[in-house]
Amino acid sequence: MPELKEIAALIGGVLRGNESLEITGVQALAAAGPNDIAFVARKKENSDISCIQAGALIVTEGSPITYANLVFVSDPQLAFARLLEYFNPRVPFCTGIAANADISAKARLEANVRVGPFSYVGANSLIGADTEIHANVTIYHNVKIGRECLIYSQVVIRENVEIGDRVIIHPGAVIGADGFGFGRSTDGSAVKIPQKGKVIIGDGCEIGANTCIDRSTIEETVLAENVKLDNLVQIGHNVYIGKNTAISAQTGISGSTRIGAQVIMGGQVGLADHIQIADGVMIAAKSGVTGSVKTRMIVAGIPHQEIGSWRKNMVLARNLETWKDKLRLIEKKIKELEGK
Amino acid sequence: MPELKEIAALIGGVLRGNESLEITGVQALAAAGPNDIAFVARKKENSDISCIQAGALIVTEGSPITYANLVFVSDPQLAFARLLEYFNPRVPFCTGIAANADISAKARLEANVRVGPFSYVGANSLIGADTEIHANVTIYHNVKIGRECLIYSQVVIRENVEIGDRVIIHPGAVIGADGFGFGRSTDGSAVKIPQKGKVIIGDGCEIGANTCIDRSTIEETVLAENVKLDNLVQIGHNVYIGKNTAISAQTGISGSTRIGAQVIMGGQVGLADHIQIADGVMIAAKSGVTGSVKTRMIVAGIPHQEIGSWRKNMVLARNLETWKDKLRLIEKKIKELEGK
Amino acid sequence: MPELKEIAALIGGVLRGNESLEITGVQALAAAGPNDIAFVARKKENSDISCIQAGALIVTEGSPITYANLVFVSDPQLAFARLLEYFNPRVPFCTGIAANADISAKARLEANVRVGPFSYVGANSLIGADTEIHANVTIYHNVKIGRECLIYSQVVIRENVEIGDRVIIHPGAVIGADGFGFGRSTDGSAVKIPQKGKVIIGDGCEIGANTCIDRSTIEETVLAENVKLDNLVQIGHNVYIGKNTAISAQTGISGSTRIGAQVIMGGQVGLADHIQIADGVMIAAKSGVTGSVKTRMIVAGIPHQEIGSWRKNMVLARNLETWKDKLRLIEKKIKELEGK
Repeated sequence: MPELKEIAALIGGVLRGNESLEITGVQALAAAGPNDIAFVARKKENSDISCIQAGALIVTEGSPITYANLVFVSDPQLAFARLLEYFNPRVPFCTGIAANADISAKARLEANVRVGPFSYVGANSLIGADTEIHANVTIYHNVKIGRECLIYSQVVIRENVEIGDRVIIHPGAVIGADGFGFGRSTDGSAVKIPQKGKVIIGDGCEIGANTCIDRSTIEETVLAENVKLDNLVQIGHNVYIGKNTAISAQTGISGSTRIGAQVIMGGQVGLADHIQIADGVMIAAKSGVTGSVKTRMIVAGIPHQEIGSWRKNMVLARNLETWKDKLRLIEKKIKELEGK
Repeated sequence: MPELKEIAALIGGVLRGNESLEITGVQALAAAGPNDIAFVARKKENSDISCIQAGALIVTEGSPITYANLVFVSDPQLAFARLLEYFNPRVPFCTGIAANADISAKARLEANVRVGPFSYVGANSLIGADTEIHANVTIYHNVKIGRECLIYSQVVIRENVEIGDRVIIHPGAVIGADGFGFGRSTDGSAVKIPQKGKVIIGDGCEIGANTCIDRSTIEETVLAENVKLDNLVQIGHNVYIGKNTAISAQTGISGSTRIGAQVIMGGQVGLADHIQIADGVMIAAKSGVTGSVKTRMIVAGIPHQEIGSWRKNMVLARNLETWKDKLRLIEKKIKELEGK
Repeated sequence: MPELKEIAALIGGVLRGNESLEITGVQALAAAGPNDIAFVARKKENSDISCIQAGALIVTEGSPITYANLVFVSDPQLAFARLLEYFNPRVPFCTGIAANADISAKARLEANVRVGPFSYVGANSLIGADTEIHANVTIYHNVKIGRECLIYSQVVIRENVEIGDRVIIHPGAVIGADGFGFGRSTDGSAVKIPQKGKVIIGDGCEIGANTCIDRSTIEETVLAENVKLDNLVQIGHNVYIGKNTAISAQTGISGSTRIGAQVIMGGQVGLADHIQIADGVMIAAKSGVTGSVKTRMIVAGIPHQEIGSWRKNMVLARNLETWKDKLRLIEKKIKELEGK
């Protein structure tokens, strides 16, 4: 079992307290016992911690907290994340290629690729070194997947999709299904427009469970590096999403919309098609964004407004009853005045 | 073929009519023929049934309905449900373990477990007696599944998830995928916080198709007994859902939110993170619940309000045009009065 | 490589320009090179095309565009769609039945059915000629699938579902899962109502990725011919959807609702249960339709209104702040008048 001084070294922290305390795990603050280490979020460093039983606490450099054993770091949450992984290392799903996987003779797998049972890799697909593919995954033909990726079970990756390095795709996600594109025939029925474009997923992206990213007629649907998508998200065809953007669950982006870098969206947001969202924009949960947001701001509402205006209007809209009463009173008074 | 008296006995009802009428099936009221039994919902017991051709009707005790053959029960819908199952018994998906399933040598299966083709069960997982696992299911390692469960095709259950008895999981549901948790590195990019917590599903729960229930960093995501989730629902990490709560399709619950017992939510509802919903609260479809609801009430709207207030405000908000006209008229009259 | 005159013949167009220009592919207007053909949408035919490098352009009959090589057709988008398929023909997923598929001895497959690895077809199911089933698909027992269908990977089709000809089902879709139907027992807990009805999907339908279509207690859930559903859509039990209707991503239709023909819905729309939507109705994205829409119109909002009224009310609702100021001013003036 590591001693507290080893833990402190691991997270690059400064220790104050018992260097040789044995640490057996990480825990949430309230659940931690005398051999666990926990962390205190910066904004909670003035809270009452008198009932805490943790063996040691990770806190921000310069924190006012007094406690028997403290480790000071610049970012306690990230330090905690590192220890979480240290004490609970991910177990590889399998070693090598399962005997009951089906890898096309024309596919190419680099060193140390792992493929689980009942997974299929099509012709001319390339899987980068150290990538792990779990059970019941379908990878069509001509797919490129980078190195150190993690493809969970039941994922589908359609043909010609390109995925970068260190990408994580959670169970049930569908990458590269046909976009929703139809023309109208003369009798009014929908005619399918073939969807032959690529989907390109940048390095370090993470795609949530049962999320869908569509391919376009001919253009590319692109996620730049380090984009993070939550579960059940819909990305329409020919969408571009900039670097480091994070999108919460059940949000949908309509076709050909272009989203900047470092954008943050809450859950159940909807974006219209063919609009632009500037870098750094934040979109509140459940918003309906009907037009471009061209400068960095926070928006909310259906249709969206700058969040300050939205809040004011919401407060007013919730009190329309009192307005009605006021209007009635005014009308009555005017009648009285007119009668004079 | 059973006679009507046997059917009446099966559902604990009192028969008035032809005891020996042969009943060959159950049907919807409008579609039922002379050897079918149908039911009349309590609120429809005063409807015109002169065109009905059913052999017999199940009605509430004390119902005013006059009909040749009636069976009186306390709850006609539940009686009908029992007969539906009686006349259309579920066919087991398979018998025993399919030769082309892949069960880890370290997994433990109790008596009469059935596993379909291309399903995988990982090491140290335990499947309870009489549980049925269909085709193309992936169960990771260290999973516990109780007895008499029904796990439909394409379901994914990640490691360390614990599932009670008599749980039904519909196709494509994903239990225990990583929660959407990120810190920010100094360059602004998202850094993944490992998600190592458990998901615990209580006895009698039902999880809809393509629904996602996430695991947390370190705490537990919990569904108490008999929780019913519809399709495409998103349950964030560290959420708690109380006993008998029912949640309709496409609703999303953000992380660390705590929901009471007997709560009912419509479809496409969104709940903010870290809030509490009291026992028995009802939330109308499409609501956006931005803060805790601490007492039993019905809420609606974005942001949510008590439903009575919401309805009044909605009626008013739909008529703002007339308000505008009124305001203009008032302003005109005031000018006239001032002119005097 | 085909010459431009062959391409023109293929799409039934009239050529003006170099008949023998070699065409090697189709491209988007901005990306097309000297041997590519592109199309100009009717509404863009007055745009500046001076920077275009395409070898030839497909335009509407009578178009005012001047360009070296033009092909005039009645519908440029549909002509382009045909060429997209011509230059990028779909590659069959596999030939014949994969050795590692699992087809019940009691299933019946017509001529030229293709089934990929790890797909399962249950007893008494019938797969029509020329239908292609990809990898990891689960087709339960007693399913009927028509001819020339395309069933992508990870699709689940439950028992007794009937699917017409030329139907496309995208990855992860779930057809025929149990509807969300519960009674209440005397102790307040939900009691499952068995869902034994059929799902029937008409000829030419297309079902998006991870979309769910539920089965009912006893009635049929029906999609008429040529219905188009986008990804992550929820269709409740006992719903009827008319011919040629198109529904965008993440929309949900509650149980027993009846939708007409040629209806168009945007994304994230929600429809209440037991309502009717007339033929040709259009529903804007994010609308919440709480009651029937009995005549052809466009609706928007939560709850829905005719879109003209909704727009007016929205503009007014976004400016409540100015109203508040006006009301205050009016009240002040009335006080002054009363004081006189």
